[in-house]
Amino acid sequence: MSDTNFLTIVEDGFVSKQVLSGCGVYDGTEIHEASAILVHLSRGGAEVQMYAPDVPQMHVIDHSKGQPAEAESRNVLVESARIARGKIASLAKLTTADHDAVIFPGGFGAAKNLSTFAVDGKDCKVNGEVERVLKDFHKAGKPIGLCCISPVLAAKVLSGAEVTVGHEEEEGGKWPYAGTAGAIKELGGKHCVKEVTEAHVDTKNKVVTTPAFMCETELHKIFDGIGAMVKNVLKLTGK
Amino acid sequence: MSDTNFLTIVEDGFVSKQVLSGCGVYDGTEIHEASAILVHLSRGGAEVQMYAPDVPQMHVIDHSKGQPAEAESRNVLVESARIARGKIASLAKLTTADHDAVIFPGGFGAAKNLSTFAVDGKDCKVNGEVERVLKDFHKAGKPIGLCCISPVLAAKVLSGAEVTVGHEEEEGGKWPYAGTAGAIKELGGKHCVKEVTEAHVDTKNKVVTTPAFMCETELHKIFDGIGAMVKNVLKLTGK
Repeated sequence: MSDTNFLTIVEDGFVSKQVLSGCGVYDGTEIHEASAILVHLSRGGAEVQMYAPDVPQMHVIDHSKGQPAEAESRNVLVESARIARGKIASLAKLTTADHDAVIFPGGFGAAKNLSTFAVDGKDCKVNGEVERVLKDFHKAGKPIGLCCISPVLAAKVLSGAEVTVGHEEEEGGKWPYAGTAGAIKELGGKHCVKEVTEAHVDTKNKVVTTPAFMCETELHKIFDGIGAMVKNVLKLTGK
Repeated sequence: MSDTNFLTIVEDGFVSKQVLSGCGVYDGTEIHEASAILVHLSRGGAEVQMYAPDVPQMHVIDHSKGQPAEAESRNVLVESARIARGKIASLAKLTTADHDAVIFPGGFGAAKNLSTFAVDGKDCKVNGEVERVLKDFHKAGKPIGLCCISPVLAAKVLSGAEVTVGHEEEEGGKWPYAGTAGAIKELGGKHCVKEVTEAHVDTKNKVVTTPAFMCETELHKIFDGIGAMVKNVLKLTGK
């Protein structure tokens, strides 16, 4: 699963942003997804700006135990700054005009801090700033990349968007979150089956998605799938 | 700079470990270095086990401000588990016999939690478990990979080891930590100048190093330099 990240890249007039939702798969942004996105954007010649909502995390998970740390409270923006190496701004400051594309990494942060999908499923609410950003980029015809669990945000906010979260059946532990495909449909999205090394491109809506950690597999395959997603986002900017 | 990570990989009888020192460049493991190491190990067909010392962090840095969060206390093992997605063990449990190689990512965690280099420089002390692991792997003729600031650990513990932290001059902001090369020599190591995309291989000591975030540059170049380091570590295992 994934945290929410907005990725902003700027180079040669090209700007993309990454929206983060914390730092760590179980209560924030999935670290390796965010890092892979940044490597591929860097290789593609893009500059990046990062954003996160300045709100408390839904909760803090002790990742060594997989259990909530009841007494602790952490801020999504402050923890996301660990991935951004300090260079991050509040999502409220993000304007569509300044950027050519936006990318949302995964991790449970996308389903806990950027939306309520982790607890409310198809009846989830999406953070107001996240909803604004998705609608504004869509309206401006600027590409939106998402991976892992974050495609639920596009399915909820952009009615009829085609996205992938991988396979639709569990298949012996390889696709432990396969039920998410059904939720995508209930949210109003169209689900397209893809392998972990592939990206699905909804050319009409300019929405590009890849399964990433929805699949239990070797990390380099997840890295390559994210590469396919980033490459298609860059291509759709037309720059 | 870098956190301390021990990387353990196991596949086809090949095992490597990664030792972590937290989660976030300024008080723990540098996230993108740890992630790049894991991607390259995965592509090289290696399985990985991760370890971190079960000790309090030297301090907690609010990465959005670059300032210490005075009231907070975090544990190195618990925070490292964010990078390891929960699959991590205490460094005290790491035995050389179970692994074919060990890799230490960078980040200030290597200089704050795995050693006292950040405050004591050439007079630094190295965490007892870290020292044990370095000496045991060296004695067993098993390769040791390090990047960013973590080569200071090898320079301190393995007298005469050749390592790189990049260039020895600051050069207009590209090598902001260039002074570290001098400290390497004072610690008893031999410093070899390398570019960020290269690794230095000390074939006698089986120590492989790359500058990583010691250089201010595009992320994909750091990623490629880490790839060169990992490839040489794998080669030196002879498997």
